[in-house]
Amino acid sequence: MSEFFHVVTLEEAVARLSHLPPVGTEGVALSEAAGRVLAADVRSDIDLPGFRRSTMDGYAVRAASTFGATESSPAMLEVTGSVEMGASAEVSVGRGQAVRILTGGMLPSGADAVVMVEHTQALDNATIEVTRSVAPKQNVIEPDEDLAQGETLLWRGARLRPQEVGVLAALGAEEVQVFRPPVVAILSTGDEVVPVGSVPRPGQIRDVNSSTLGAMVRAAGGVPRPLGIVGDDLDELLATCRAALSEADTLVISGGSSVGTRDLTIEVLAALADSEILVHGLAIKPGKPTILARVGDKAVWGLPGHVASAMVVFHVLVAPFVERLGGLSRGAPVARQPARLSRSVPSVHGRRDFVRVRLEERDGQLRAVPLLGRSGLLRTTVESDGLIEIDVNTEGLDEDTEVWVRRW
Amino acid sequence: MSEFFHVVTLEEAVARLSHLPPVGTEGVALSEAAGRVLAADVRSDIDLPGFRRSTMDGYAVRAASTFGATESSPAMLEVTGSVEMGASAEVSVGRGQAVRILTGGMLPSGADAVVMVEHTQALDNATIEVTRSVAPKQNVIEPDEDLAQGETLLWRGARLRPQEVGVLAALGAEEVQVFRPPVVAILSTGDEVVPVGSVPRPGQIRDVNSSTLGAMVRAAGGVPRPLGIVGDDLDELLATCRAALSEADTLVISGGSSVGTRDLTIEVLAALADSEILVHGLAIKPGKPTILARVGDKAVWGLPGHVASAMVVFHVLVAPFVERLGGLSRGAPVARQPARLSRSVPSVHGRRDFVRVRLEERDGQLRAVPLLGRSGLLRTTVESDGLIEIDVNTEGLDEDTEVWVRRW
Repeated sequence: MSEFFHVVTLEEAVARLSHLPPVGTEGVALSEAAGRVLAADVRSDIDLPGFRRSTMDGYAVRAASTFGATESSPAMLEVTGSVEMGASAEVSVGRGQAVRILTGGMLPSGADAVVMVEHTQALDNATIEVTRSVAPKQNVIEPDEDLAQGETLLWRGARLRPQEVGVLAALGAEEVQVFRPPVVAILSTGDEVVPVGSVPRPGQIRDVNSSTLGAMVRAAGGVPRPLGIVGDDLDELLATCRAALSEADTLVISGGSSVGTRDLTIEVLAALADSEILVHGLAIKPGKPTILARVGDKAVWGLPGHVASAMVVFHVLVAPFVERLGGLSRGAPVARQPARLSRSVPSVHGRRDFVRVRLEERDGQLRAVPLLGRSGLLRTTVESDGLIEIDVNTEGLDEDTEVWVRRW
Repeated sequence: MSEFFHVVTLEEAVARLSHLPPVGTEGVALSEAAGRVLAADVRSDIDLPGFRRSTMDGYAVRAASTFGATESSPAMLEVTGSVEMGASAEVSVGRGQAVRILTGGMLPSGADAVVMVEHTQALDNATIEVTRSVAPKQNVIEPDEDLAQGETLLWRGARLRPQEVGVLAALGAEEVQVFRPPVVAILSTGDEVVPVGSVPRPGQIRDVNSSTLGAMVRAAGGVPRPLGIVGDDLDELLATCRAALSEADTLVISGGSSVGTRDLTIEVLAALADSEILVHGLAIKPGKPTILARVGDKAVWGLPGHVASAMVVFHVLVAPFVERLGGLSRGAPVARQPARLSRSVPSVHGRRDFVRVRLEERDGQLRAVPLLGRSGLLRTTVESDGLIEIDVNTEGLDEDTEVWVRRW
């Protein structure tokens, strides 16, 4: 087992995990596919819409039959039939002819445009006047205009939104190959931590991190597997971690923030077979006591015990990792919001600070209001809408600075 | 049955539904509560953390015992014991005394501050030197500092994020009262529409809207109930709508965009008992042919058949309604992102335009790139990150205008 005992940057921590591959894939019903990550590029095997389609109610015509038509000098066309919705037209359209068609109807052979009904006048059952000319292709969707056979519109590694599910429906995909959601085991440690269902005695606190981190795992597309609480006991921790790693794709331990507890976590991780401590101290605030190890081909996280610190580390480091394990490789583009700082925020050079902020809209502008004060408390996480990052090379930010807010 | 046959604004449409109450409530396990909407304010019945807690590894002391202590003139304190994690201290701290304590430990009686271990030096097993003074309350969290008994931190109508679930855990809530998710029936109509699993014949298209709208219902916190496809048949539509409304909380019909199909939807809605057409034409683009009716105490939506138009109307009108049915009343604050237009966008006075945009980050700035062209196609919905709105009183927007992007 090798170790790095110096504090590392966020980027270094991420880089030390980059070799871990995503989990496997599975097929899901189309109706369950939204929110999942696509496991393979989707190439269209058909044209969409697949036939020449009208975008208007009116008459399918040869455009040339209408050239020069105006209110004062309309073109006279013979109506030779109607297109039924959902069927190919049985008639074809010749020069000087028109066929009734509805929005979404299939153009008859011979027709290359549609005249809107508003620009026609029926003279009798079989004759219309066209009062405005149409160009070829006007009011028509070409057979491959939405998607052409052989084209790829959806890509492996993208999270499926409603519109991508719609494309899959259009292509007839009743089942979709997606990455299976990574299973994230969650363990709370500490002799002072008691289950949510019990009444804490003096000195005890309820297990908050299992709930908070479990919900964050879900939001990152994973499946939380809560392991409950284990006290500061080496053998029990070791057995629990071993069992967790045989089943889960990654393990998150949130522990007390005392030096002794952190040392115990390190001791447990070191005692596991084929383990390597990758990070023991992270140059961010909050979150400095973060531990990261590789055990076999799985990552194990040791998060600070303070709920707010654990949330920040999860948000900036673990959530992106869980997303990557779950196959996500094509980002939700730009998930951050620009805003202006409502007041200055101090920081320390050489450390990356994550500051909770509340968003306020004032005079049509977004303001980020920093929530300073006690960092470990739940209250500020509830009162905040997201985090801003203060760069490692910056000594604080001035009022009115434009910042990026990462919503949480 | 009364009717409004003029095109109405978005605000008018929303106002005509404002009297419909949210659905009922239900209890869910804490582990399932994330993402749900809280059904009642949560008042704390306890103080949090509930005891005076150390935020450091070190020694619990009376701050006064350290006053004036420096490196060169340290204070000498007698170590009288240790605090065990998760237990109340058995010793108390007197003047000139110190008790070992870890981060998260409960302060012994008599102590009002904690000296960090880094600012002490052990002389022998029972004596330390303190090299820096501490103020009362330093490195200590007060019993009610995170949350005080009787205080309300969580409110009815708020969607629960991980941190709110954490608060519920801290308060011992194994079950949480939330709004039940509204059931949204989804019906596709049109003789040209065939199920996803079938191979369309010429003139037919697969049912895309059921999948797209179903996924959007989920994203709005509802449960989609797909009713499949019904052709342009009055009796069958009527029977399907009646059955749907007896079970679901609201019904979304997406139909062809032809005038005949729209008229048929109106005819069906009018034939239902205690029905009222609230909207028949909406002053937005896309989405003008939108229909909205009240049937009994339920809303029925008639969306355009074009997938992109149906998505826009759902996004701007139906989704907020489904969220409100689901009890959401305390907004995710400011869910829009400011960005600058990459090029000018034309618009028509008197109509609110929703334009699909792609977001690009360029020189640290967010640019919104309008996706113009065919509005009905699936492709632009996939290529876009969201919508911008062009106000009813504006004739287009210039390049570089700051716009709000609603992600979708």
